[in-house]
Amino acid sequence: MGDATREIEALIDLMARLPGLGPRSARRAVLHLIKKRTRLMAPLATAMQTVADNARECVQCGNICTSDLCDICTSGKRANGEICVVEDVADLWAMERASVFGGRYHVLGGTLSALDAIGPEDLRIPALVRRVGDEQITEVILALNATVDGQTTAHYIADELSGRCAVTSLAQGVPIGGELDYLDDGTITAALRARKGV
Amino acid sequence: MGDATREIEALIDLMARLPGLGPRSARRAVLHLIKKRTRLMAPLATAMQTVADNARECVQCGNICTSDLCDICTSGKRANGEICVVEDVADLWAMERASVFGGRYHVLGGTLSALDAIGPEDLRIPALVRRVGDEQITEVILALNATVDGQTTAHYIADELSGRCAVTSLAQGVPIGGELDYLDDGTITAALRARKGV
Ligand SMILES: [Zn+2]
Ligand SMILES: [Zn+2]
Repeated sequence: MGDATREIEALIDLMARLPGLGPRSARRAVLHLIKKRTRLMAPLATAMQTVADNARECVQCGNICTSDLCDICTSGKRANGEICVVEDVADLWAMERASVFGGRYHVLGGTLSALDAIGPEDLRIPALVRRVGDEQITEVILALNATVDGQTTAHYIADELSGRCAVTSLAQGVPIGGELDYLDDGTITAALRARKGV
Repeated sequence: MGDATREIEALIDLMARLPGLGPRSARRAVLHLIKKRTRLMAPLATAMQTVADNARECVQCGNICTSDLCDICTSGKRANGEICVVEDVADLWAMERASVFGGRYHVLGGTLSALDAIGPEDLRIPALVRRVGDEQITEVILALNATVDGQTTAHYIADELSGRCAVTSLAQGVPIGGELDYLDDGTITAALRARKGV
């Protein structure tokens, strides 16, 4: 088939690279988009281009934003002396959806992992230690996944910050092996309220 | 949160309107895209805009293309006197993937349905009858889903074309209640080879 189909095939191939979409669901999504090309496909293409052009990581916390510093880092209201440490941006979003935390964040960008040879310097751990001094932080809340690597990372950070500020972690409500991004808002709220010293 | 997050939220909302993606998988897809914004997100935005700007229905068969007539309708090689009738473009794509049919297509755009008040004039059935006369068609192959509405539509078309050309239908291999788009290529091939008169 000719150019027309090649353009559509190219689009399907790109869509199929999204997590959770295989070739079949990518085809169905593209057909759906073509049927709604004015009301959905064109706005989606524009929104995607806008984010592709502007999205970047906040230089302070690692959140995704469209300027050097994210809205949370620039908001004076969020400077309450608390930093919530998360593994990735999806977890930060999950915390924000729960609307229970009023401080700032620090996105590690992963967890320590002996298996994958990921050490503190590969994450934003040195930057976190600097922030605790620079920003008069009184409490660091570790909101890491309840996995082995997540807990190893939590203990490493607690050791690094020992004596410099309070270090707490989400406790009650996070199921063993559970990942933050899969929890409902109520569970996250309960876990934050019942946080305890590490 | 400010403008930055609103742009990303807008993108997530649009993505969540794709079939098979809910809010959570849309968020994960957008995070994935942002992480790969140069290699995946920007090309995807461009491909989507290109298809949104150019995709339309072939005026003859209803296939999706980027000009008035699709590549199959303009190819002389496909003018073999056979028309394969399908419910929608996904089914046409499924037939093409099987690489077993050498003729042209006719996309009905649905099936007759008493419940949904869809009659012959709401589909491309009159256009099909015209094509059989205009294009010296010798055989119409009904590749409709093995659903009640699909089979009702098949019988209606067979009646309309009675005495004007041979009318066959995919037979062996299509499971009861099965939808064409979910079949593997081998099943479609077997069903086409074993087609029988209606
Ligand atoms: Zn930030
Ligand atoms: Zn066509």
